[in-house]
Amino acid sequence: MVTPVIEPVARLIEAFARLPGIGPKTAQRLTYHLLRAPDAEARTLAGALVAVRDQVVFCDRCFNISDQPLCPICRDPGRDETRLCVVEEPLDVLAIERTGEFRGRYHVLHGAISPIDGIGPDRLRVRELLERADQAARNGAPFVEVIMATNPTLEGEATAMYLAERLDSVVGTVSRIARGLPVGGDLEYADEVTLIRSFQGRRAV
Amino acid sequence: MVTPVIEPVARLIEAFARLPGIGPKTAQRLTYHLLRAPDAEARTLAGALVAVRDQVVFCDRCFNISDQPLCPICRDPGRDETRLCVVEEPLDVLAIERTGEFRGRYHVLHGAISPIDGIGPDRLRVRELLERADQAARNGAPFVEVIMATNPTLEGEATAMYLAERLDSVVGTVSRIARGLPVGGDLEYADEVTLIRSFQGRRAV
Repeated sequence: MVTPVIEPVARLIEAFARLPGIGPKTAQRLTYHLLRAPDAEARTLAGALVAVRDQVVFCDRCFNISDQPLCPICRDPGRDETRLCVVEEPLDVLAIERTGEFRGRYHVLHGAISPIDGIGPDRLRVRELLERADQAARNGAPFVEVIMATNPTLEGEATAMYLAERLDSVVGTVSRIARGLPVGGDLEYADEVTLIRSFQGRRAV
Repeated sequence: MVTPVIEPVARLIEAFARLPGIGPKTAQRLTYHLLRAPDAEARTLAGALVAVRDQVVFCDRCFNISDQPLCPICRDPGRDETRLCVVEEPLDVLAIERTGEFRGRYHVLHGAISPIDGIGPDRLRVRELLERADQAARNGAPFVEVIMATNPTLEGEATAMYLAERLDSVVGTVSRIARGLPVGGDLEYADEVTLIRSFQGRRAV
């Protein structure tokens, strides 16, 4: 039999259930919560969703998220221009920034190389990274160090190795964050102390 | 130090984190997912949120959610007018409807009596339920049965007992769904077979 869920409710449940990690039961609970919550709660969430899509872009230089052509880190003149940290996702930038251990610039790849999933270097911001390193070298100010802070997974390791080979000739040192991170884990969930250890224990590739 | 989260992103993370069961890490993940997902995904969710608040009201008769003054169940002439099922939340109506075991009408209390939380009968749709039963009796068509399908928790039991006493004189029978449901649990999570057992095993209070 057809359950008499009214249409706007069904649509919101469906929209929630499309989010990663939100199952149909949770989607139902969230929907019914918002039905009873103060009107402003649902409207604030709706407004924030639209604003995020209207106002957020990727940084022209490092591909972190930004609300201007250059992100706050690329705009900050106080950051160390000679050190670059390469990460998979914008969330990884956040995690590293929270430690306060790194004061250089970033480059966000938007993924890792994964032949099994059909993700080659051309699907990531790899070309832009290599160009950025080349450009710095041609300007007479090559990166002193490029830190590979991709995840300690098979894909992350492969990506770090791939990039290290290609960057070797145009940068001072390519380093890899230490395996203080639990192998097979996900960088953005690491606690700050583990992340700091990883930064401090980094070694030349 | 201040993490350089840009403002629209921070606002969406905050709005997600205000939802029940969504922690700050999950809120972050959902936000970054929507940044990368097709534009339509965020806008569909935003539209569904606004629509739910603009179009959804509570049924004038049973206080289930509805998109018209009367909900689909109250509008349905094929439902048994003589049997009433009293539940705590609109989600409970959905759970019972999915079993196909009950073909009468509903009354949604919007909570349960809980002195510890300061929730008395006046905070629930209790007055409306008693008036509805009175009205039916005065019209010469009293409810043959009122089934108390509040949760099998302390509060749900107390609510059922409280209502049973007050309804006893104006309805045929007041019954309680069987304790086939695990005590201390939550009705909306019950599997359908357990719910059907509960309906079939109901007894006069």
